[in-house]
Order: sequence, then structure tokens, then C-alpha cells
Amino acid sequence: MSYFPNVDKIKYEGTETKNPFAFRHFNPEEVILGKTMGEHLPFAVAYWHTMTQDGTDPFGDPVNIRTWETADPMETAKNRVDAFFEILEKLGVGYFCFHDVDIAPTGDSLEEFFANLDEITDLIKEKMDATGIKLLWNTANMFSHPRFNNGAASTNNAEVYAYAAAQVKKGLDLSKKLDGKNYVFWGGREGYESLLNTDMKFEEENIARLFKMAIAYGEKIGHKPQFLLEPKPKEPSKHQYDFDAATTLAFIQKYDLVGEFKLNLEANHATLAGHTFEHELHVARINDALGSIDANQGDMLLGWDTDEFPTNIYDATLAMYELLENGGIAPGGINFDSKVRRSSFEMDDLLLAHIAGMDTFARGLKAAAKLKEDRFFDDLKDKRYGSFKEGIGAKILADSEDLESLTAYALEHDDPKLESSHLEYVKSLLNDYLV
Amino acid sequence: MSYFPNVDKIKYEGTETKNPFAFRHFNPEEVILGKTMGEHLPFAVAYWHTMTQDGTDPFGDPVNIRTWETADPMETAKNRVDAFFEILEKLGVGYFCFHDVDIAPTGDSLEEFFANLDEITDLIKEKMDATGIKLLWNTANMFSHPRFNNGAASTNNAEVYAYAAAQVKKGLDLSKKLDGKNYVFWGGREGYESLLNTDMKFEEENIARLFKMAIAYGEKIGHKPQFLLEPKPKEPSKHQYDFDAATTLAFIQKYDLVGEFKLNLEANHATLAGHTFEHELHVARINDALGSIDANQGDMLLGWDTDEFPTNIYDATLAMYELLENGGIAPGGINFDSKVRRSSFEMDDLLLAHIAGMDTFARGLKAAAKLKEDRFFDDLKDKRYGSFKEGIGAKILADSEDLESLTAYALEHDDPKLESSHLEYVKSLLNDYLV
Amino acid sequence: MSYFPNVDKIKYEGTETKNPFAFRHFNPEEVILGKTMGEHLPFAVAYWHTMTQDGTDPFGDPVNIRTWETADPMETAKNRVDAFFEILEKLGVGYFCFHDVDIAPTGDSLEEFFANLDEITDLIKEKMDATGIKLLWNTANMFSHPRFNNGAASTNNAEVYAYAAAQVKKGLDLSKKLDGKNYVFWGGREGYESLLNTDMKFEEENIARLFKMAIAYGEKIGHKPQFLLEPKPKEPSKHQYDFDAATTLAFIQKYDLVGEFKLNLEANHATLAGHTFEHELHVARINDALGSIDANQGDMLLGWDTDEFPTNIYDATLAMYELLENGGIAPGGINFDSKVRRSSFEMDDLLLAHIAGMDTFARGLKAAAKLKEDRFFDDLKDKRYGSFKEGIGAKILADSEDLESLTAYALEHDDPKLESSHLEYVKSLLNDYLV
Amino acid sequence: MSYFPNVDKIKYEGTETKNPFAFRHFNPEEVILGKTMGEHLPFAVAYWHTMTQDGTDPFGDPVNIRTWETADPMETAKNRVDAFFEILEKLGVGYFCFHDVDIAPTGDSLEEFFANLDEITDLIKEKMDATGIKLLWNTANMFSHPRFNNGAASTNNAEVYAYAAAQVKKGLDLSKKLDGKNYVFWGGREGYESLLNTDMKFEEENIARLFKMAIAYGEKIGHKPQFLLEPKPKEPSKHQYDFDAATTLAFIQKYDLVGEFKLNLEANHATLAGHTFEHELHVARINDALGSIDANQGDMLLGWDTDEFPTNIYDATLAMYELLENGGIAPGGINFDSKVRRSSFEMDDLLLAHIAGMDTFARGLKAAAKLKEDRFFDDLKDKRYGSFKEGIGAKILADSEDLESLTAYALEHDDPKLESSHLEYVKSLLNDYLV
Repeated sequence: MSYFPNVDKIKYEGTETKNPFAFRHFNPEEVILGKTMGEHLPFAVAYWHTMTQDGTDPFGDPVNIRTWETADPMETAKNRVDAFFEILEKLGVGYFCFHDVDIAPTGDSLEEFFANLDEITDLIKEKMDATGIKLLWNTANMFSHPRFNNGAASTNNAEVYAYAAAQVKKGLDLSKKLDGKNYVFWGGREGYESLLNTDMKFEEENIARLFKMAIAYGEKIGHKPQFLLEPKPKEPSKHQYDFDAATTLAFIQKYDLVGEFKLNLEANHATLAGHTFEHELHVARINDALGSIDANQGDMLLGWDTDEFPTNIYDATLAMYELLENGGIAPGGINFDSKVRRSSFEMDDLLLAHIAGMDTFARGLKAAAKLKEDRFFDDLKDKRYGSFKEGIGAKILADSEDLESLTAYALEHDDPKLESSHLEYVKSLLNDYLV
Repeated sequence: MSYFPNVDKIKYEGTETKNPFAFRHFNPEEVILGKTMGEHLPFAVAYWHTMTQDGTDPFGDPVNIRTWETADPMETAKNRVDAFFEILEKLGVGYFCFHDVDIAPTGDSLEEFFANLDEITDLIKEKMDATGIKLLWNTANMFSHPRFNNGAASTNNAEVYAYAAAQVKKGLDLSKKLDGKNYVFWGGREGYESLLNTDMKFEEENIARLFKMAIAYGEKIGHKPQFLLEPKPKEPSKHQYDFDAATTLAFIQKYDLVGEFKLNLEANHATLAGHTFEHELHVARINDALGSIDANQGDMLLGWDTDEFPTNIYDATLAMYELLENGGIAPGGINFDSKVRRSSFEMDDLLLAHIAGMDTFARGLKAAAKLKEDRFFDDLKDKRYGSFKEGIGAKILADSEDLESLTAYALEHDDPKLESSHLEYVKSLLNDYLV
Repeated sequence: MSYFPNVDKIKYEGTETKNPFAFRHFNPEEVILGKTMGEHLPFAVAYWHTMTQDGTDPFGDPVNIRTWETADPMETAKNRVDAFFEILEKLGVGYFCFHDVDIAPTGDSLEEFFANLDEITDLIKEKMDATGIKLLWNTANMFSHPRFNNGAASTNNAEVYAYAAAQVKKGLDLSKKLDGKNYVFWGGREGYESLLNTDMKFEEENIARLFKMAIAYGEKIGHKPQFLLEPKPKEPSKHQYDFDAATTLAFIQKYDLVGEFKLNLEANHATLAGHTFEHELHVARINDALGSIDANQGDMLLGWDTDEFPTNIYDATLAMYELLENGGIAPGGINFDSKVRRSSFEMDDLLLAHIAGMDTFARGLKAAAKLKEDRFFDDLKDKRYGSFKEGIGAKILADSEDLESLTAYALEHDDPKLESSHLEYVKSLLNDYLV
Repeated sequence: MSYFPNVDKIKYEGTETKNPFAFRHFNPEEVILGKTMGEHLPFAVAYWHTMTQDGTDPFGDPVNIRTWETADPMETAKNRVDAFFEILEKLGVGYFCFHDVDIAPTGDSLEEFFANLDEITDLIKEKMDATGIKLLWNTANMFSHPRFNNGAASTNNAEVYAYAAAQVKKGLDLSKKLDGKNYVFWGGREGYESLLNTDMKFEEENIARLFKMAIAYGEKIGHKPQFLLEPKPKEPSKHQYDFDAATTLAFIQKYDLVGEFKLNLEANHATLAGHTFEHELHVARINDALGSIDANQGDMLLGWDTDEFPTNIYDATLAMYELLENGGIAPGGINFDSKVRRSSFEMDDLLLAHIAGMDTFARGLKAAAKLKEDRFFDDLKDKRYGSFKEGIGAKILADSEDLESLTAYALEHDDPKLESSHLEYVKSLLNDYLV
């Protein structure tokens, strides 16, 4: 049985195709900079947006038509496994991601929830074995249930903390079972609704404590996924502790988690924090902390997380440039943390939207590779920072100068020659790479 | 000679006064929580906004009437010293702050600039000795001149770097001469206009390098002010490296500057970064990095630094609460990094605006002290986090639990009892403290 | 039977009370400017936030505990009527507001929905008759159901348009039945998700068409509530046509609806549009279009509609000043379009939050009345615009000047004397009115 | 003598050129949709950004190198005329725009200012006659001088009002002399710094009064340029009355200026107001008020007017689509209200930046023309709104339905068939048009 009986495996057909169920840019076998596009672009599909998101918004009821829905939660969960792997295979995507609550009903007790998870992950494992599709990362949803009103690891309620710990343990067990490459923490309510009643230091210490328990447990069970933190500044919380890449790095440093934790960066979270996506990727990269990415886009005029499928070529190009500079993103990947618009509520939109996102990243890859081959940015920067390659500049970098010696130098050279960056010209040239 | 001949020393006259040149709330001798208001509120006046700001904006010519202006830059600079100390004395303010370029003309060469600085600081020192007024902090303006187009410590031009180093050395020499309590770095152009042509890692390393030179030089000359970094997310740069408190702490940690550098936090910079002022103060405080504050306020509907004099009682109360929790802010202070509105262009507005700011902080102090005496927030939090004081909560804090033991616990206790925070009631009660 | 058995009718007990279920500022019998506070403050409770809101957010499941919930929708609806009027009576609030879907289940067909509405409004009418509580306004929810994905009056689907028309007709029938004072249109999806596929002119004409049908129908049935439009810039739509007060006035003028339609203004919608609440009220007032207000507040650092209960005294004071200047707001009122925080999920919070809001507006009223009695703003403005009372200013206002005569005047008077606004002093004085 | 001796007239050389002083996309003779690109794109250069902008920002001194600067203001002004027309001719641009203060020194009196304007416009007229270059629009700068602190037409000072009127008269006289096609009002300080001391109704009436004087004077002198208002929400004022297109249309309607005034829309002003540029253009177009455009772009993460040269192809395409739908923009044009970045301070950047902007609009035109030829948006909309072409939809548009008849219809058809908009697919297809 098929959930998309009228759609075959989606293939590259080029820009002239009239077939909406075809790639116009993503050609997995095409070789770029010595690797195939498929290798460059380890795409993943997100279980939540694809399988459980119903199209609600704060002023709207469910709207999505999903033919796998039944009256029985476990039957629906099983249908979803079938449908999900059909989508993955038809798209030719090699990875996926999930929260615990996405894949199995939570039931009436924690015990029942865990049993449901075991049963569904048996099915998932079968599918993985049959298809070769891999788990990019899983995580625990520790923000939707009322018990997480005031956070999970940052909760004020010790029993809630224990509950969260149990979910993390189960998450790591499932990660081992499914050979997950990474394990993600997104702290949607690890933050505060009001600073008035919050003890931030207490809460952050408790968060670090849970992370260390997770590391220890991974070591104990002999399964060590790359741990990832996912920054977001706000929503649902008024303020979230992992505000952005830099804030999260401060936390990682303070609590001696450097090397243990990297970042899972999302485009829409970047812009909500007042940054471009490429900025966040760059910050992570130069701190050796670029773990994985959540590919989507926001609306710059809206103040909430729209999680749109990525279609902006500028953003995709600059993101892919960072990934190339990073030498790829393994063991991370490019996960479509993207949801179809409320008006795209039909089953087919799930495929169409992923095709759009994959084509956008394919375009971004091609442009970024050309920029790299042409040393477009490299040459710009070499020239721009040239004064540090010799003379006083080289001495500064060699740490052989101090305030006194530099003062002596400056008194003799107090009229530095300045040069224009010609930024408008640079941006205009860049446009020609995008197409 | 006086610049404000019609205004006497400003005194506390209470809320019924009709005299605009009087404090209605700030009563320096009034004792609160065992210290005088004067001790609680180590106010400082900023040289730049008070003496050199001319009222221009991006669409407006100079408008401020300043009777100390003459055709000769050095004469004007000397007049400013007189006028500045008259203002300080009339306000009864004990501290001040300045950038190098605020106090003396830059002349035609670095050498001339330094000579001018020496001459003017001789005058300032005389005034300090005569009045007991102290230097809270000084800094070097390394952002206004065209040479700093691409930053100072983060410049792409090695000669500019040397120039900046010379200014920092001179700044520290002046700090020693005037017994400055702190020395501030605000990186207005330590950031980027475009990431396209920027090597962020290179630039940040160079910034850290300059900071280490400053520390070394301070040790060498036997003068160790508290070094402070002042976060701001943007403006003038599109992106500034010291985006906010957390980002700046990440930098301090990464480059082994913990203990050497603390933060100088500004209200308007906080809101531009997407935070409340109290949030930034809180982050700094719990990281033992609350150095000093720049008291002002922004307009939440405007996207630039308006640097208004603080008049919002909510903000002042929550800021003062953080200062009380910090045990005061010494050796830092409360610097009015605030400028009169363009429409407040008369000489008298300089006094009126400072009075408004000082009265606002006096109100904030009184409200914060009452909140502390009543244990308003303390009791809220004690109750809220109570579950961590015993049982499983206490064990978690004692690091005697792990994921497995907590899972066992959670399986037995999977329905935690939740309690409302009654946040609306809390906010309503808080209002009664403000008045 | 009572839903709040432990809470009596809430009374004014002053600021010293320890009873959380008491007004500390709102004293309905207290006379201010010749009217009682109760008359000045025609509060209304919103059915949706109070009775049907469940505490969900985009990342959170329902959390609110509501003891009127049952398994049967009609039984729940009936319980809600009882509970709602108990809340109204305990608070001493004289008005209420509702959407059609708030009060009755939508059932399986439009016919069934209408029958349910008839049955429930019979109950409501009984309660109204028994208590004297009045309907401030009702409206139709034409945004939550999937059929309204692309708008209601602005839909691209003619059958949806017809459906919306039917809801409006029913809304007016219910308004007549319950003697509603106003009838509101909030166009949550009257706007666009993407301009790419939108014909804005077509859609706006259809909106105006529906409004004219509503006017005609009201005339036909002999019931003419004040029609109100409620501006909001975005959310749920990416762009909403009634962006703000001015935009909505442009629509009203263009489609000849002046006099027929006024505005229902909400604080949080104002700030989302980039305005203060007082700005929006002022714009409406000077255009004779201030119809009613939705009292709440947003978080200036968040980009979505938080609909918090109003607790900010500044905002309440300036809002109440506009209402006093308007000569009151009848036949409109002050509707708490406010929801309890997710962490305030207990039944009692419904009362506590309304008490907080009512106390805040009581404080605002008292401050505004004092400002008016003292002619605080009147005197400021009289002095500020004084030059237009005589001489060339008076002639300008008398329309007796033209460009040539004014040029002649200006050539003779090209150095106008300017005066400071002393804005910092004004703001500091204003603070003393707030307490 | 030449200011750009090393640069010849700039020509189209295609994308392969290595010559930075060449168009890669703008080919003025190329025919598109029956007109040449030159006809489609009536570019104008702005005097202020090109000739007088010095690169200052709120934290930076002048930086731009401009070889026409001398110690004598009138000599500089004359040099600028030469340099400006050299730029226009080298770029092949046919139009220009200016404020009065851009072209001539204001001198020591209004009389002297007018005399200077006369002298310089004589030179400009000579250049215009010699080259065929035309005046797109001029305006009066009524915001920079201290006298305009509180506005010009909205001032509280009657003498300032007269001064503004004199500038407008002179502006219209110069417009007649130079055969200006349009005359613009941008109300940079026609708004308020604080609502506390503002009488908005009084001020708006005075603004309308001045506009009517301008209309009357134009009629009197027999010169009727198209009058244009330029919306901007804020900066320099905290709030500006012409907030956005819709707000400005409300003003135009209220004061009976429909037909007399159209809009001059700027991209960066649109985004500051919370709109896309295409939204503002669309609103103006469907209200028959699209007068002219100020081509530039802002930074979506910055809250102030950056006035960057336009380089974003998405924005340019959608803007050009609106212009094509409008049947062109004559008598308006495409004015580069754009300034070089502070780091692009060299003379050559003036040319390079304009080339970048012109190439961007050329790309936008080509993409928009293709979209139009293919009926990309037309077909989308025809299909989407198809239900209004027959049956109940057609009757609604024919105004033959009312609430009762539609209710009857809806009761029979209460389950409308909904269709997906496939928005992700639409956006992906759109990408292929951009290249």
C-alpha cells in the first residue's frame, strides 16, 4: 500500500521539466568539488513537521489532510512509519530525525509510553535495515506537556526533573538501538516566562547537571552520539537560555562541556535572535562547534518561528559556503525542520515542499562551490588583511609587540592609508554566482 | 564665572516642590538598608553626552546651545572642564567618565593629541583634587575617525591596530594619572559591516591580543583599573562582536580573561539585543561579572540607540534590585550614558535631565530596598523551588543521582503535582512597591 | 453550585489588604471627575480567554484546569454560562463579549451550530435579565476553521464567503436578541499569507461588500449596534489588511463607511504594528472613531500577540487619559482581551488576573484624572503652540495666508526664536502622577 | 576637467566582463515587452547621497573622499554641478533629484539662500539643456536645520511654518524653471518626538493647509508637477505621520487631496514600517497612487534607514513586476535614494555602486517581464479566484446577494471544497525566473 500512489521515486529532470514531482536542481549523482551532490547534502526529513504537524496556528484549528490518521493512536503511529519511509525513499533522502512523542503515543503512564516507543522503534529499525536510511538524530520532547510548563532540566519541580531525565535516558537507549549519529537538546522551555520568579543560576546548573548525566550514561552503554544543543532566543519561553550560538558556547565553556557538545543551528532561530543564518554557522565553525543544521527559513517581518521550507537562494548559498569551509558537516546533516504553510494542507505538499527545499540547497551548493573554486571570498580576504602578512602586522601576530612598542610605531605612522571595500561591487558580483 | 549662574547647588526638596532645579526623590543623606542613598547610587556624568554632544541626528544639524563653545578648540576644551565640574558639583555627583577625544582636540598628529590630553588632564586633576570628584572610568574613542572604519583592534589594517594600541596605552596612562577606578572598552566598530569580507576568527584573536597587552601594561605601570567590556549588538556596525552579556562572557572565557574583565552594561544596548536591562544585569551578576552600568533608556519601538535619560520606574527598580543583590557595584558606578533629546537643546536641560535620571534611580532604589526588606522575590523563589530542598530534589543537587536512578524514580512518580505561578497577581503586587 | 466556592464577591479593600481576592485600587463607588469609577470603567470579560482558552501555545499542549469541562460539548457549554456569570458577578463587571464559537459547539452542520447558538443564548439571556449584565459586543469567529484558511470576506472561495455571511447574519440576530451595544469584525485572516498569489483589490472590495450587507441587514431588522473594526498588523496572517488604526481609517474612508464603522483598539495589536497604545487611541479619537478598547498588554521584546493582562501603570494612565479626552467610550467599553499566562493555569488565576487588570486601570484612571484636573498636558500644549494664537500664526489658521505672503513674511523673519520642550523634566513630573 | 578621468562612459559588456566600470545586465537598448530597457527604467541619481553625503554615522566622523570639496561653499557647489552631470552622463542616467540645501549653500539669510539657489540652478539648467538630462523631482529640506526641530508644516512655531512655506514656494519656482516632473514632500520631522506634548490633529491640519497652498501656487504659476508624499514610519522622528502607504492614503483622503497627491515609495522605508517593498507598491498601485520610487534596500536585522544600493534580486524583481502592472511609472522614475557604505568612501565607489543598482534593476526587469509574458502570477490568480467567476461567486460580485440569501445558500453548502495553494512549489518555480 502507498500513501502517494501517483508519485514515483523523484528524479532529477532539470529546469525545463513540467513535472512538479521532479528535482530541477538536485542531481544526487552530479560531482561537485570531488564529491557527489548526495554526499555534500546529507538531507534529513523531520518526523514532527512531516508526520504529526496538523497545520494549527494560534488562531487556527487543524487543517492538514493526512491519510494515515485513524481513531487508534498506535495504528496511526504504525501507519506513520510506513508513510514516513515511503516519503524518505521517494525523495531519496538518507536521514531522519524525531522527538520521542512524534513516533509513539504517550499513553497513560511513562511505562506505557516507553513500551510504545519500543514497539514503534522495532518497526523503524526494520525499515532502516531494509532501506539503508539512517537516524541523523533523535531527541526528547520536554516542552509540550503541562509538566514542562516551567522547563524540564530547568524546572522548579524536582519530580519533573526526574521525568525529564527518564526521557533522556530512553532517548539515548533508542539512539543506541537505531545507531543515531547525534542526540539533540532543544530547550524550548529551558528559560523563563518571567525573570521575577526565576533563579537563573540554579536552573543553568541543573541543566549542566543533566547534560553530564547524559554523557556519563552514553559512556556506560557504549554509545556516544555527538551531543548537540540547539539555540533559539525565545518562543515558547519569553527568554530561552540557549539564546544564540555565542550564548550557548558560553554555557558550554562555563560548564566544561567543550568537545562534548556542539551546536545544531536553525536558520529561523538565527533570525529571531537578530543574526543571519550564516553568522551563526560562522560563529559555530570558528569555534569548532558546527554540529548539524536545521534547514528552514523565517519571515523577516514576522516575530515568530515560521519554519518555512527554505527557498531563498542567497541564504542557501551562504549556508552551504560555511559547510564547505567546515569540510562538510558529518556526522551532522541538513535536516528540514520545516513545515508546509497552513494553505499547503494536502498530502502532495509534503513532497512538493521537500523538493523545493532540496532544490534550493542544491542551488546553494552549486553557487558556493563556484565561489570556492574561484576563491571569490578567499581572494577578497587575502587582499583585505594583507597588511598583517609583513612588517608591523606580522610582528603583532607573532606576539612580539606591546603597547609601548606599538605606541612608538604609531607616533611615526599616524596616518594609515585606508582602502575602500567596494562592498556594492562585491555584492553585485556575488549575484552572478547565484544563478 | 559660572555657566549656570541662576542655578544653585541642587538639593532634595521633596515631591511638593515647584522648583525644577531640585531633587524630588534623591536625598543623598537618607539611609536605606544601612547605607545612604549617596553611597548606594555612585552616579557619574558622561563627558561626551554632556559636553560634546551637539544634538545632531542622521537627518539633523547641530542644535544644542552650549555657552562654552569658542572658535579655538583648546580654549573650548578648557571651558568644558570648568563647566563640567560646575555641573558635577551642582548635581552633587561624585564620579565622571570620558573618552580621550571628548576632553581634548585631536590636533594634527598623534603627538599633538597626546600633548593636548596631558594639558587638559592637568586641569581635570586640579579640579578633582579640589572637589574630591573621582574618575569612574575613561576609555579611548576608537570608532569615530575614518581610520577605524573597519574597527580598531579588529581592523584589517596593521597600522590602525598600532594606532589603537597607542590610544589604549595613553588611556591607561591617563587612568593612572587620574586614579581611574575602571577602564572601559566599547567595541563600536569591533564587528563587521558585512560578513562577506570578514575573517571573524582573525579579528577576535587580535582583539584578545590587545586586551592582553593592556593587562600587561597595567601591571607594568602598577595601575590596575577594573577592565570592562561594554556589550552592544549593533550600531554603528551591522554586527558587533560583544553582542550582549552572554556573548561577551563567551569571549572572556575563550580567551582566558575571566577575572580580568567584567562588564559595563547599558540599558539601551540590552534592549537592542532583545533583552531587558535586568536580564543583562542578572546574567553578569550570576557570572561574577557585573562591573558597572550605563544608565539610560531606549524606545522599545525604535531600532537604534536613543540613549534617553532614564525615567522609567519599572526599569530603575529592577536594575537597582540587581545591584542590591550584587552587594553594590563598586568599583563600578551608575554612569548616565544619556543624552538630552534634540528638542531639549538649552543649557538648563543638562541639569534638568540629570535630575530626572537621578530621581528615577532614587525611586528605583527605594522600591528595590523595600522589595528586599520584605523578601518579596526571595519568598517567591524559596517557595517555587522548594521541591529541591528535600527528597529526590536534594539528591539531584547533591549529584547523587544519574539517569538510571532518576528513571526508576520517574516510573514511580510520573504525575508530578504542578502549581500556578500566579504571575498576574505577582505583577500587580509589584506595582504597589513602585510608588 | 459554584465554580469558585471559596471566593466571595470581590470588594475594594485598599492597598494594605492581604486578601488576594480583593481590589486594592478599584473602588467602583469612588467618585472621580463627577462620575463613579464604575461608570468611568465599563469593564467587560472576554468569553474566549476566560472560558475556552486552554493554555496551549505553538509548542505546548493544553494546560488550564477548568472545572466546567465535561465529555459532552453542550453540557460544557451550559456549564460555561453558569461559570461565566459567576465570574462576572464576583468581579462586579457589567459587560461581556464573545465570538459565536466560544459559546456553543459548532456541531456537524451550520444548521446545528445555529440551533446550538439559539439554545445557549437563551440561557445567556436569562442570566443577563437576572443580573443586569450587558453584552458589550459579539462577533463571529471567521478565522479558526480550515475553511477560512484564505480569509472569510477576503476568501478566494465564493462558498466560504457565503458561509461567512451566514455567520455575520446570525451574529447580528444574536446581537439583537441580547441587545448588543457593538458588533466587532476582527480580520484575523482578512489579509494574505503571500502577496504572490493575492489580488488585494478584489479582496478588499469583497470585504467592503460584506460590511455593507451587514449594515443593510441591521437596518432591516431594526437593530443597529455600533460596528467596529479591530486593527492588527499580522498573526495569524503574514499581513492583515486592518494593519493599524490609520490603515483601517483609510479603508473606512475609501469604501464610504465613515460614521458606520469605528475602531476597537487593542494594546498588543498596537505594539505589534509599531505604535504605542496611546498613539492608536489618539489617532482614532481625533478621527471620531474611538469605538471600544481591548485591554491587554504585550511583551515589547516578543513579536507575537501575548495578550497579557494589563499591569503596566504607564500604559493604563495614558490610555485612560485618551478615554477621558474622548468624553468616555460609550457605547464601547474596556474589554479584557487578555489571557492568563500558561503558568497561571489554575481556576483562581482567572479571578486574580482580572483583579490585577481592573486595579491597573483604576490606577490609570486616577492618574489620568489628576493630570486632567491639573491641566498638566493642556497647559503644556497651550504654551507650546502659543505662537498660533496671534499674529502670523493666527492668520495661517484663518486661511488668510498663501505661499507668497508667507515667503514675504519669512524673508523678514528668518531667525525664529526656538524653545526647549524640556522633555526629560516633563517625564519626571509625569512619574509623580502615576503613584 | 573630469572628476573621473580614468572612467569612460559606462557600457553594457555582459556578465563575462572583468571591467568593473561596465554594466553586466543593464543594456539600455535591449527591447523587452516592446520597450527598451532604458525606457522601462527611468533611473535618477540623488544629489544628496551622491554629492553631499560625507559618510558620517551617529558614531563616525566624515570619511568620504570627494575631490570637488573646496574651502569656499559656492565654489564647492559649482564643482558639484560639474561632477554630478559627469556622473549622470557616464552612467547614462536621464534624471536626477535634489533638495534645495543639496545644491547651494544656505548662506546667512533666507534671501542669500534663494540667491544662491538661483545662481546654481542657472548652471544646472545649462547642463540640462546641453545633455537632455531631466529633473525627476526636487524638494525642500525642512528637517535638518534646528528650526525644524519640531517639524516644518507640523511645527508648533508659526514663524517656522512661514519659513517652510517660503522654501516650498522657492521649490516650486525652481521646479518650474527646471521643468521638474514631480515635487516631493518627505516629512522627516512631520511627526512627533513625544505624544505627551503633541496636538496631532492641529499639526495634521496645518500640513494639509500647506499642501493646499502648494497646489494653489502651482496653479497660479502655471506649473503643475505631480505632487508626491513619501511615507516613512520613523527616524528622525519617533513617529512620522506618513507612516506607510496606507496611512498616507488615509491622510490624502481625509483632506481631499485624492488625485492631487500620489506616493513616492522607498524600499527601506517600507521595511522599517513592517512591510515588504512590493506590498507598499501594490497598495499604492491599486489605489491609483503609485507616483515614483526611491530605489534602495535596508538591512532586515537593523532598525534604521541604511539606504543601501539595491542588490537583492528578489526585491528588484517583485518591485519591477508592480511597475509593469502599473503600466510604467511615468511621470515618476526610479531614483537611487542610496548611499555608499561607510567603507566605500572612494570616488570610484559612486560609480560602482550605481552600476550595481542599475544592474540589479535590469535583472529585476528581465525576470518580471518573463513572469508577465508567461502569465505566471496571472494564471495562479485566475485559477485561485475562479469560484467568483460563476454561480454564487458571480452573484456576489454583481451585488445581487445579501446576508439572508447567502445564509440560505450556506445552509445548503456548508462544506466548501478547499484547495492547497502549493506555496512552496510556487516559490521554487519563481526562483527559476530570477536567473
